Amino acid sequence: MAPLVTSGDVDSAQRRLAGRVRRTPIVRPGPGSFGVDVELVLKLECLQHTGSFKPRGAFNTVLSADVGPAGVVAASGGNHGAAVAFVARALGMRAEVFVPELCPQVKRQRIAQLGATVTVGGAIYDDAQVAATQRAGDTGALLVHPYDAVTTVAGQATCGRELAEDMPDVDVVVVAVGGGGFAAGIAIGFPPPARLVTVEPDTSACLHAALAAGRPVEVEVSGLAADSLGTRRVGEVPWTVLRDRVDTSVTVPDGAIAAAQRALWQELRLVVEPGGAAALAGLMAGAVPVAPTDRVAVLVCGSNTDPATVAGPAPAR
Amino acid sequence: MAPLVTSGDVDSAQRRLAGRVRRTPIVRPGPGSFGVDVELVLKLECLQHTGSFKPRGAFNTVLSADVGPAGVVAASGGNHGAAVAFVARALGMRAEVFVPELCPQVKRQRIAQLGATVTVGGAIYDDAQVAATQRAGDTGALLVHPYDAVTTVAGQATCGRELAEDMPDVDVVVVAVGGGGFAAGIAIGFPPPARLVTVEPDTSACLHAALAAGRPVEVEVSGLAADSLGTRRVGEVPWTVLRDRVDTSVTVPDGAIAAAQRALWQELRLVVEPGGAAALAGLMAGAVPVAPTDRVAVLVCGSNTDPATVAGPAPAR
Repeated sequence: MAPLVTSGDVDSAQRRLAGRVRRTPIVRPGPGSFGVDVELVLKLECLQHTGSFKPRGAFNTVLSADVGPAGVVAASGGNHGAAVAFVARALGMRAEVFVPELCPQVKRQRIAQLGATVTVGGAIYDDAQVAATQRAGDTGALLVHPYDAVTTVAGQATCGRELAEDMPDVDVVVVAVGGGGFAAGIAIGFPPPARLVTVEPDTSACLHAALAAGRPVEVEVSGLAADSLGTRRVGEVPWTVLRDRVDTSVTVPDGAIAAAQRALWQELRLVVEPGGAAALAGLMAGAVPVAPTDRVAVLVCGSNTDPATVAGPAPAR
Repeated sequence: MAPLVTSGDVDSAQRRLAGRVRRTPIVRPGPGSFGVDVELVLKLECLQHTGSFKPRGAFNTVLSADVGPAGVVAASGGNHGAAVAFVARALGMRAEVFVPELCPQVKRQRIAQLGATVTVGGAIYDDAQVAATQRAGDTGALLVHPYDAVTTVAGQATCGRELAEDMPDVDVVVVAVGGGGFAAGIAIGFPPPARLVTVEPDTSACLHAALAAGRPVEVEVSGLAADSLGTRRVGEVPWTVLRDRVDTSVTVPDGAIAAAQRALWQELRLVVEPGGAAALAGLMAGAVPVAPTDRVAVLVCGSNTDPATVAGPAPAR
């Protein structure tokens, strides 16, 4: 059985991360924005260091461990790799990141610019994880897992705590799911009675499948957001949290994700990657069950994409 | 003598703008970010409706007036025009916007998408203003001035008040200047003892020239940020505020502005237009006098640009 993430773990994470990650802001886009009829708040975690929430878990994991001269190693569709490279640079450690072939060029560049070695290993994230785990065994480097570790989830939970402080009266929290680490962190950081709604791409929905089956199961992975959300199986540690805390699990087609990306550009001039826009896509597409009086918080959690993909001609807002 | 902007004018503006403009967030990018050695806060007014601070003044002006069937008319390098179009649409009015030839395509499109008539009038903003003033006289439409009106400055001052509330202990506030309306609003919204530092492009520095001459004077206008900051002469109403409140007035070359734009993309994945990045450019270039212990707030005030211009290959952060 996977270990549980405690409130004390999150307290420790907050202490470790103080001054190392950004407290990201919220914005209320206002009535009518994004065509949704609720009181909407966006938490702009896309403004975090390296353009995603990932440095929270990565810092917490690395600062919890005794790292030797071999440094750290990680597998990543891109964002976690950039975070691990950022953390290693900040702490003066060596870093190697295994990325799958579908990792976009913008993310590979970012990892390399931050001083880490980038190695391509396999077609999707899970293949890269096998390679990274083997490398850690060979060299003694610390394996920094992107989602399936108590330290990772506790680190991401600091984001949930920030949101809970900034918006204590929320009714619904909407968050995207890849391996489940971020969603679990938000769930832990954000106490009930808020309802947690998870959003996954139709083509990459390991949590949705796990909730249907009552246990983590393997799914196929593809689509627009596969580089950040494409995980074959929800993590065991996140599952201990999410199995009981998810109010509703929904999935969205790639077209809805692309529409949310365009809307974020048109409404807020924010460049958001597919995985970072997935939660908003669920709300905009009407997949998230909300009432007009609900106060709804949406996590916007990643920005590493080519802006040309979001800033094309778009209808008037 | 130009009329003075009172605290009561700003109170009225706050009431008129409630629920119509966004309270934009601040973000603390953290130690080492942007290569500056101060405690830095950015106010992300680039997330405002239509991508700049301009709806504040535009809403306040239009809501202060009795607008007839001819609607509203304005001249603008682009951002004020988009704001006037946005305001007119929200209030169900007709709008016509005169833009100069240097108005970028992205801004013309935005104005037209918002339902306003776009008319090209002259080479730079001041030429378009002549055309707009004449049209207002001919049709009876309300002329919504981009900077030289009490209602405009009082509207922009609501942004300064937000910043003062969110960061009451600031030492230095850095703001870009075009016609002076935004800078004057920030000055009014932000009480002393904070030091106000204004930044203008080397090639478009009407406030800098006015402060040197002791009165508004005409300057030549060109350069990267001319569409948003290119004003030949500081406004009379802003001048009544700025002549006494500017601690230091600095100018920066276009290269420093472009570097700040790239840094905002690299550090925060924000797409910011030249005029919106000018204040940060002043700080990054070392032109703004600061001590390492200073708490410095920088206004990031416009986002309407082609992202391809800021998201090119850049050095590691």
